[in-house]
Amino acid sequence: MNGAQALIRTLVDAGVDVCFANPGTSEMHFVAALDDVPEMRAVLTLFEGVATGAADGYARMTGRPAATLLHLGPGMGNGLANLHNARRGRAPMVNVVGDHARSHKRLDAPLESDIDAVAGTFSSWVRRSLAPADVAADAAEAVAAIANGGIATLVLPADVSWEEGAEVARPLPARPRPRVAPSVVEEVAAVLAGSEPAVLFLGADAVTEDGLLAAGQVSAGTGARLMTETFPARTARGAGLPDVARLPYPPEMAMAALAGTKHLVLAGATAPVHFFGYPGVPGHPVPEDCTVHVLSEPGEDGGAALRALAELAAPDARPELLEASRPELPTGELTPRAMAAVIGALLPERAIVVDEALTSGVGLMELTSGAPRHDWLALTGGAIGDGLPMALGAAVACPDRPVIGIQADGSAMYTISALWSHAREEADITTIVCDNGSYAILQHELSRVGAAGDGERAAKLLDLGGPGLDFVALAQGMGVPASRATTAEELADQLRAALAEPGPHLIDAVLR
Amino acid sequence: MNGAQALIRTLVDAGVDVCFANPGTSEMHFVAALDDVPEMRAVLTLFEGVATGAADGYARMTGRPAATLLHLGPGMGNGLANLHNARRGRAPMVNVVGDHARSHKRLDAPLESDIDAVAGTFSSWVRRSLAPADVAADAAEAVAAIANGGIATLVLPADVSWEEGAEVARPLPARPRPRVAPSVVEEVAAVLAGSEPAVLFLGADAVTEDGLLAAGQVSAGTGARLMTETFPARTARGAGLPDVARLPYPPEMAMAALAGTKHLVLAGATAPVHFFGYPGVPGHPVPEDCTVHVLSEPGEDGGAALRALAELAAPDARPELLEASRPELPTGELTPRAMAAVIGALLPERAIVVDEALTSGVGLMELTSGAPRHDWLALTGGAIGDGLPMALGAAVACPDRPVIGIQADGSAMYTISALWSHAREEADITTIVCDNGSYAILQHELSRVGAAGDGERAAKLLDLGGPGLDFVALAQGMGVPASRATTAEELADQLRAALAEPGPHLIDAVLR
Repeated sequence: MNGAQALIRTLVDAGVDVCFANPGTSEMHFVAALDDVPEMRAVLTLFEGVATGAADGYARMTGRPAATLLHLGPGMGNGLANLHNARRGRAPMVNVVGDHARSHKRLDAPLESDIDAVAGTFSSWVRRSLAPADVAADAAEAVAAIANGGIATLVLPADVSWEEGAEVARPLPARPRPRVAPSVVEEVAAVLAGSEPAVLFLGADAVTEDGLLAAGQVSAGTGARLMTETFPARTARGAGLPDVARLPYPPEMAMAALAGTKHLVLAGATAPVHFFGYPGVPGHPVPEDCTVHVLSEPGEDGGAALRALAELAAPDARPELLEASRPELPTGELTPRAMAAVIGALLPERAIVVDEALTSGVGLMELTSGAPRHDWLALTGGAIGDGLPMALGAAVACPDRPVIGIQADGSAMYTISALWSHAREEADITTIVCDNGSYAILQHELSRVGAAGDGERAAKLLDLGGPGLDFVALAQGMGVPASRATTAEELADQLRAALAEPGPHLIDAVLR
Repeated sequence: MNGAQALIRTLVDAGVDVCFANPGTSEMHFVAALDDVPEMRAVLTLFEGVATGAADGYARMTGRPAATLLHLGPGMGNGLANLHNARRGRAPMVNVVGDHARSHKRLDAPLESDIDAVAGTFSSWVRRSLAPADVAADAAEAVAAIANGGIATLVLPADVSWEEGAEVARPLPARPRPRVAPSVVEEVAAVLAGSEPAVLFLGADAVTEDGLLAAGQVSAGTGARLMTETFPARTARGAGLPDVARLPYPPEMAMAALAGTKHLVLAGATAPVHFFGYPGVPGHPVPEDCTVHVLSEPGEDGGAALRALAELAAPDARPELLEASRPELPTGELTPRAMAAVIGALLPERAIVVDEALTSGVGLMELTSGAPRHDWLALTGGAIGDGLPMALGAAVACPDRPVIGIQADGSAMYTISALWSHAREEADITTIVCDNGSYAILQHELSRVGAAGDGERAAKLLDLGGPGLDFVALAQGMGVPASRATTAEELADQLRAALAEPGPHLIDAVLR
């Protein structure tokens, strides 16, 4: 058995049975070995950033890592932005990065670059397999190392892949998630028993159904307000769950949301900071006289900690739950809010919403909060171009659930070739492009940072209108049925039709 | 004056007056300052890999650096593959990478990542500007540091950009290119005076017009064969220049091309190695009993060294020059060779050819060798997705010259949004997509590496046919007029029409 065969078999045995791939010459034995291990599903992408974003989406929906197959340093570089997002969301992932054969390495061939240095910036585990006899054990260790989140990068020299002498390695026991000590729960309970205003700030496993219900119980019993991080990796939402606000993105709104808070209790979240620094604005929204308490860190068993806290601090309380409610279908002008209302009115049960709406997301959270239960995936690391790939990964992870991508136009172009993979995999994804013809978030930020010049040249650099992007043509060019909506009614009709038919669709929502 | 204003003014004063940009929030003051320094031309791209590839193409055609403007670590990551190509081709370039404000850095905001570590893998000069008072001097140093090729990366914290207190810095004197010592020229002349078979192996400035004419003179006088690197950054070609073969890409062909060579004299080139290692194949094509001599390294003044060598070794010889000749226009089936013949028949004078044809490039060099004088830009680093961006940069550099991109279909998808910038800049670029519906090079490589499995699953991972990519729709969706050619006659008609009309065009050449 060669190294590639042993590697793939070991990954499958360890539960990694999907690989988002964009292979090159140095990965040809891996590709060939896929025919020997049919349990590994390979999903072809046309760009590595699609592969890494898809692996992120897959991990968020399954809790398990997918593999990626990337072609040397430049291929890994193409995947880097979405690896960054995955790192920030703590998604587990196993990157397999092909490299030159060991004998070829010292020749400094044209594709040679420092893979290990770049991999170190986003990986929690990096190893270069040095021999066919090692590669399977390396792979088993990679999977075990990221059981509680994080990216493992295995650099695979071509000859380690092609040489014989490899053997399958058995899965290693996964380290259990660290549990939170009872004393920590008791301390937090004591804080919440006081009368000072407190916020329970939620992320990671505290925004699952179980986590939210426990948090809701705590809130009902103690009066602590609930709030989630601005961009949690995956949030359970909808009717039957507590109504939990997100910390707003704009610094002033975030500071207002936390004003007066004396105790900020972190559950699966880190203390919030603003996305960017701005002249004359503090770097984070936590009030100066607010004490930060850690119930659980991301990666710890925050769900159990929240349940323990609920039993201790609010044993008899019942969480206040959202009743089923949907906005009315709007008519007329297709504003961002009208788009949000259409989505809220039609969102199907068990939908997976991939949210890269950015500035066009006005009202989106509010108008979907009482919809049937769904999951919401956000842009964890701020590196735009995550939405279309993540939707692919979510659809591969959950083929029986509809995926709705709400996608800013400028961001869509970073990884637009993901649409081809949507079509190829016949993935049940409906992408709604928020088509405002501009980098609207940057137009806002240009004034936001207090930049003096708002002359013609600066403005032109934030405008996508010359020429306009025709997302219907782009989608159709990659095999995805597409249509254009210019009124709220058209969007509703087209969304209904797209949801009624399996497979990918794209709706170009031309916003006013 | 704030840091951004001083930075841009300093760059312009140092001769850097084009910036390929994909800005984000942290670069908003740079964007605003563009209105204060109108001499800086900003070219918007929708993806950072387009910006870096364009800067590479610009540098190849002008010999001068362009700037890029990239958004933090993930933006730089998106640009990494084409930064790799630029590094391999020794293109000068100044990256400006925006980063968090200094006060925000320690907060580990979502977009935080290790910019400096990644920049170090492709840059020959890296600096993080620490204060507004430093940034202009840093910029002047960046430009001077890469006068002879290489990438300078300047990390620009947002507050260094927005704070007042900066002053413009004067350009630093550029280090002259190192000259080759006369003794080196004499040693090489002595080798070539012998009777053993020699090859003059050319790259960098040895494949300019002057370099090639001097090399041709040496060849005519000494019998040394001429050969260029497989993928030189820029080669002068066409009637009136010596006929110089490229070292072939496939290992066996490369070894055959150098078989029997006893002396390999490097002029602006490094000793050749195969792109990849293969089982049972040596890593490079240089025969074991061949001595390698260095006339000039890339970055040295190889043109002067070649002229000195010509005067010393072949003072009375005259180079053998290609006569003007074009293939006849083919008819019927549109094979790769027919495509090459159409291009050879119609290539306009002073064209810039951007070659990312890969497997579809069969016969391309041969059938264009006697065409009117033109420049040929190749994929220096092997990171695919360079062609469309590089064409943009070449067109911005040389607005009075037609640019012809010969573009493999699979590779085109990595940076397809470059077409939008072609349209926005009204760049005179005709892109011919070699549409064979597959990663043909990988199908070849799969058999080439001796991989056992050629089953269905491996094959599917190299096939772009399900669904087919409609490049006409993709181009039109980004504002580029496009057509489809399925016969040699159609390609000829469409290429003629595209060349007759200024601005961008795309022809989808459906190859048999």
